[in-house]
Amino acid sequence: MHTSLMRAQRLFEVINLGSSQTCLITDLADIHWLTGFSGSHAWLIAHHQNLFLLTDGRYVEQARAEIDAHHAVVEVIECRTHSAMQKTTETITKGSPSVQFQDSQLTYQNFRALQAELSSTLIPCDLSIKFLRRQKDQNEIRLIESACLIADHALQQCVHLLSEGVTENDVRDELEYTMRKLGADGPSYDTIVASGPTNSARPHHQPTSTKIEDGHTVIIDVGALVAGYHSDMTRSFVVGPMSSDQANWYEAVRAAQQSGVEACRPGVQVSEIDTACRKVLLEAGLDQYFTHGTGHGVGLMIHEEPFINSSGLAILQPGDVVTVEPGLYRGGFGGFRVEDLVVITEHGCRILNTSPKDPTCPPLQLTT
Amino acid sequence: MHTSLMRAQRLFEVINLGSSQTCLITDLADIHWLTGFSGSHAWLIAHHQNLFLLTDGRYVEQARAEIDAHHAVVEVIECRTHSAMQKTTETITKGSPSVQFQDSQLTYQNFRALQAELSSTLIPCDLSIKFLRRQKDQNEIRLIESACLIADHALQQCVHLLSEGVTENDVRDELEYTMRKLGADGPSYDTIVASGPTNSARPHHQPTSTKIEDGHTVIIDVGALVAGYHSDMTRSFVVGPMSSDQANWYEAVRAAQQSGVEACRPGVQVSEIDTACRKVLLEAGLDQYFTHGTGHGVGLMIHEEPFINSSGLAILQPGDVVTVEPGLYRGGFGGFRVEDLVVITEHGCRILNTSPKDPTCPPLQLTT
Repeated sequence: MHTSLMRAQRLFEVINLGSSQTCLITDLADIHWLTGFSGSHAWLIAHHQNLFLLTDGRYVEQARAEIDAHHAVVEVIECRTHSAMQKTTETITKGSPSVQFQDSQLTYQNFRALQAELSSTLIPCDLSIKFLRRQKDQNEIRLIESACLIADHALQQCVHLLSEGVTENDVRDELEYTMRKLGADGPSYDTIVASGPTNSARPHHQPTSTKIEDGHTVIIDVGALVAGYHSDMTRSFVVGPMSSDQANWYEAVRAAQQSGVEACRPGVQVSEIDTACRKVLLEAGLDQYFTHGTGHGVGLMIHEEPFINSSGLAILQPGDVVTVEPGLYRGGFGGFRVEDLVVITEHGCRILNTSPKDPTCPPLQLTT
Repeated sequence: MHTSLMRAQRLFEVINLGSSQTCLITDLADIHWLTGFSGSHAWLIAHHQNLFLLTDGRYVEQARAEIDAHHAVVEVIECRTHSAMQKTTETITKGSPSVQFQDSQLTYQNFRALQAELSSTLIPCDLSIKFLRRQKDQNEIRLIESACLIADHALQQCVHLLSEGVTENDVRDELEYTMRKLGADGPSYDTIVASGPTNSARPHHQPTSTKIEDGHTVIIDVGALVAGYHSDMTRSFVVGPMSSDQANWYEAVRAAQQSGVEACRPGVQVSEIDTACRKVLLEAGLDQYFTHGTGHGVGLMIHEEPFINSSGLAILQPGDVVTVEPGLYRGGFGGFRVEDLVVITEHGCRILNTSPKDPTCPPLQLTT
């Protein structure tokens, strides 16, 4: 059976668990996963084992082509206006006792306008498609792996830039340009290049015109987008001579990350991955500087289920694709983060990135 | 009086027109305009002539710095979780009979969760801040003009690429890279490079690996982002010899666009700008191929008020910054679009772009 039919069947199983056999899907990643449609505007209605995709004139041709390529069975209906989408939804769902909708996606305004048009009652629901999307199939893993390799090669081609006087923006510009030249549809997210004692101490720093200086720590967090699928990877560097403090911190992060990856296997609760990382940092006396979660799922969204943190209850399963990314940050010192994307396999996991984890740049010159 | 105080004062005037003196602003462009805060996560509460910005730990430091630089009077409150934002909103708004909220911004799920936390009743409203944002001040116009000039210079540096064998992606990559090198924070939107009889006949085509060929029409729609402000510009080209049909179509679009720009002055209803463009195309017998609206406002959003189309009722006023962008598209032939960004002045308008409107590439070689 084709993937898309299996996905639709699982969707119908999920829907039938609820009180209604009709649902409106407005999350574009869910729609992409179910039908292959990758445009920026559509509603998908699942009704009595049939799927209807409502989109505007810009996307009708593209929708039909992508749905065909995906071997999905979906009727595409052109709706020129938002009002037409509401009226078409009424035409399709009329007579259903209720219509489940994704309340985390629809605005209150759109909810009210749609409810005013429908004879059925809208029931808020998240439909759990994000959980169906968690386990990736072989084709999805191949796309994510391609995205990983593009980011790896781009970093390899750009790492020579890390030297005194080059700005964070310069490095970001070259990385994103190189990823596109290597076949990416674009960056997977806003590339992070964070340098020095202030910027690299901020986990979510955005690149600036700050110039890199000798002795600076530099965090590079970069991924590529390929056919809708994301990659996510972080490497950290010290430019010029590395202090013993820097070497100790880096080694703690690297070891913590390795410990997290080694804990990744089917049946493990995600909080245990978090614990595996934190334990190493605790032993190094540095755990207070690890101020964020340990990882997240990656697929059609850069952040998706399962989220890996100390309270995460999800159990890893084969096909889960997750990041493992501990980091340490201290204002006035800087920071380090090391991140790989891994796919959970039958008995463990496989790392999808190939970038080396050598922080020296240029090669190691430990100060005494 | 500082700009931000004037903006806040106008906001309070607008709010007092309604039934409530408390409102929750969740549109990030509105928040940017009112406070200077440019981060990706915040709520702004206006209550009894006071402003409170709720954001998470990533943005507290940035928010305080940007609000200071903007001379705004806003109390920044750190909220670590979404639940904390809801509880803080209750603490601030407690005792108000109602709280107006932007129903086009809040999801149904967030609306329900917030209402469950609040003792006041949430009242859906769009708050009209998007209309307050319409007329740009001198500083905003300067930023938009900088963004225009960056796109102009980038196009000038990249137009030589338009030749046989170069892909749409290649041109897009160089344009976006060059804009960043010229000081842009990034592209203003996904750059459009649409070539040939199929792709350039699609107004919203996204670049592909399609190779440009001699005789192809090419549409380039490109803008830069500077300090949160957007630019938007389109130029069209014919690669190699230009047919007389192509020359006729191009000239019709260029003349229609000029006619639209000449109609831009204070007091004019935007539908008249649309009519001014369409009239020229009608006279050329080509109006059926102009399949979209004529323009839109540009500012902190790439598409904002006023929208220029045949049913637009807005009256242009000094400080409005709008695009004028007629186009012609026919599958199997290709397409042309010419677009400038203009600012409405006391007596007319001023074009913010400087790119020439010569479609020949290389220079004119009319076929007989």
